[in-house]
Order: sequence, then C-alpha cells, then structure tokens
Amino acid sequence: MSAQAAIAEKTTVINGLNVQQALDTIAALKADKSLAQFRFRAKNRWISGGENRSTIKGFYGAGAEDTSRTKPFEFTNGEPPVLLGDNEGANPVEFLLHALAGCVTTTFVLHAMARGIVIRELSTELEGDIDLQGLLGLDETVPAGYRQIRIKMHVKADCPDEALNDLLAYTQGHSPVCNTVCRPVPVVIERA
Amino acid sequence: MSAQAAIAEKTTVINGLNVQQALDTIAALKADKSLAQFRFRAKNRWISGGENRSTIKGFYGAGAEDTSRTKPFEFTNGEPPVLLGDNEGANPVEFLLHALAGCVTTTFVLHAMARGIVIRELSTELEGDIDLQGLLGLDETVPAGYRQIRIKMHVKADCPDEALNDLLAYTQGHSPVCNTVCRPVPVVIERA
Repeated sequence: MSAQAAIAEKTTVINGLNVQQALDTIAALKADKSLAQFRFRAKNRWISGGENRSTIKGFYGAGAEDTSRTKPFEFTNGEPPVLLGDNEGANPVEFLLHALAGCVTTTFVLHAMARGIVIRELSTELEGDIDLQGLLGLDETVPAGYRQIRIKMHVKADCPDEALNDLLAYTQGHSPVCNTVCRPVPVVIERA
Repeated sequence: MSAQAAIAEKTTVINGLNVQQALDTIAALKADKSLAQFRFRAKNRWISGGENRSTIKGFYGAGAEDTSRTKPFEFTNGEPPVLLGDNEGANPVEFLLHALAGCVTTTFVLHAMARGIVIRELSTELEGDIDLQGLLGLDETVPAGYRQIRIKMHVKADCPDEALNDLLAYTQGHSPVCNTVCRPVPVVIERA
C-alpha cells in the first residue's frame, strides 16, 4: 500500500507517523528548499574528570526557531572505572551508538511509511571497536575514533524480505547520523 | 606542572582524574597493546514513529568484559512536532552533538592532566547544519548528514593562552567521537 493509497483508504497513521502531515511537509520543502535547512544545538558544561552535562532545547528549522520544548533535555556523560570514572553516565562513544541506532531506526520507519510498509517490530544491536592507543596518543598511526561500527537489525513487517532489504539499503544512505559517521564531516573548534 | 611532578608533590588528583591510576593504565597499555582494544555496545528498540529507546550496559575493554554497571543506562530518542514527533526525547542528531561535546571535553581534560594543566571551568556550545532534503531523498546530491559542526569552547585554566590553543589542537586530533565524525568510518548494517 502506498502512502497515497493509505490516504485514499482514510488510513491516517502508518508506523506511528501521520501520513498527511508527512506529505504536507514534503510538499512544503519541495516548494521552498530553504525550509529544509535545520540547525541543531547543544550546550555542555564540564563537571569533573570524565563527567560533563549537556542541555538541548532550541533549534532552527522549517524557516523558524522552534519553540515546542518548554524545558531542556539534559544528558550526563561519564566514564566507567576502567576509564577513570565512576559510571556517572554512559560515555560519549556509547552515546554516539545510541544516536546512530535511533537515526537508522527512525529513517527506516519513515521511509517504510512512504512505501506503505507497516512495521510490526524493530530492534537493533550495535557494537563498535576502538583502540585506545589513539585517544591516548600512544601510537599516532592508530585513529582515535571507531574503526568500524556494526548494526544488526531485527525487523518484522508486512512485506517480502526483498522489500525490507531494499529499504535497509536506502536507509543506510539517507540516515543523517549514519551519513555523518560514514562521511568525513568537518568539525570546527574555536575558543570563545 | 607535569603529571610526574604532580606525583612527586603528592598531588594525586588533577581535573578530577586520579593521576596515578592514569599513569598505571598507560603503562599497562604500553606493555600489552591488546588491553587498548575496546568494544562498546548499545541495544535499541523502536516504540512508535520517531520514538525509540536504547539500553547501554556492558562493554569489552582492558582485556575483560566490564561488570561495573549493575543496571543499564536508558535513553529515549524522539522528534519535535515539526519532524512528526511529540518531543519524546532529544532527536538522534542532537544526541550526536551531546556525544561530541562530551568527548571533546573529556579528551581536553585528560590531556590537560597529562600536561599538568589545571582546568578551572570548561563549557562548550555546539551547532550543526543539516539539509533535510538529504534525509527525505528529495535531492540525491544533498548529503543526509551534518554539513559542518562548530564547537565554541569557553575555558579557564592556570596556564598561558598558547598552551590552551596547543592542547585544543591536540584534542581535536585525539577525541574518539570527533575523529569518528571527521573521518569516514564504515558502518555495516545487516538484518538478523
């Protein structure tokens, strides 16, 4: 069932997403590309050692400053004892996996909706390898970041396997976090 | 003051980090490089629409499976109304900024300790630009991910400006999340 067919059948929600709102959004972005420009933000404050805390609230997008959040989200980075911390929170490279898992999932579910695919269940398991010699500067030939990240996706949906494989390949190319990890993205750091 | 000098002066903690433990860790990794191999993990479960939840608990590192966490960390991805959600949580590209902020901060503080630099205050502001035409597949020449991420760092420390600038440049090259974003990192996605 295509999204258009869904509307014709008065199905307004697929995979928890409002089909009409999605179509309206896409039509608006096609008519005015400037509406597709988003700027996301975070503020972070160091506490001690490997503990620091971010607040996330406003962002710019769809041609306006978003005001839908009445209070900020707060997240604490920490480190486990083996990395000199006290498990004050998950650590930054683990939060990166959370971001990646969420983005691949949402991109998959969104484009499933666009294709009229109803998802019943979806879960992922991620793992990534890091050689700490990079962070510590013990070997300058070792990259500081992940060497590779693997995602195993469990999905049940009302469509043939081939359609799911096709959707997964499309998702990999269109997930913002996955693309940020796979592609070299410039990070500019300056002192205020 | 170098870390070695700190120990000679019986200073055991710099920037909230135990100097002796850090030196012991580095000595152990130098003696056996296999101890530097870490594998981090996350599990994620889709809830509905743009809402999904990760649990993060165990990881492998320093030659063993870590057992320091008695219960998992849980984080919820969501989307704001303009992106078809209900602000169930920060969204994945915002969590990526949180991960990046935390990693740059911890890397800075760690290498400050190694150089004997005492940090008084440290905070960052991040912003990143995304063109949603990429995610939506409206223009295949537009990358789905961040075009650029900017970090403004506010830091007060007991050292000359030049030493902080030098430390910041070193941090950019040695932060695992920053390196994962700046460098193309392979993401392998497979269905279970």
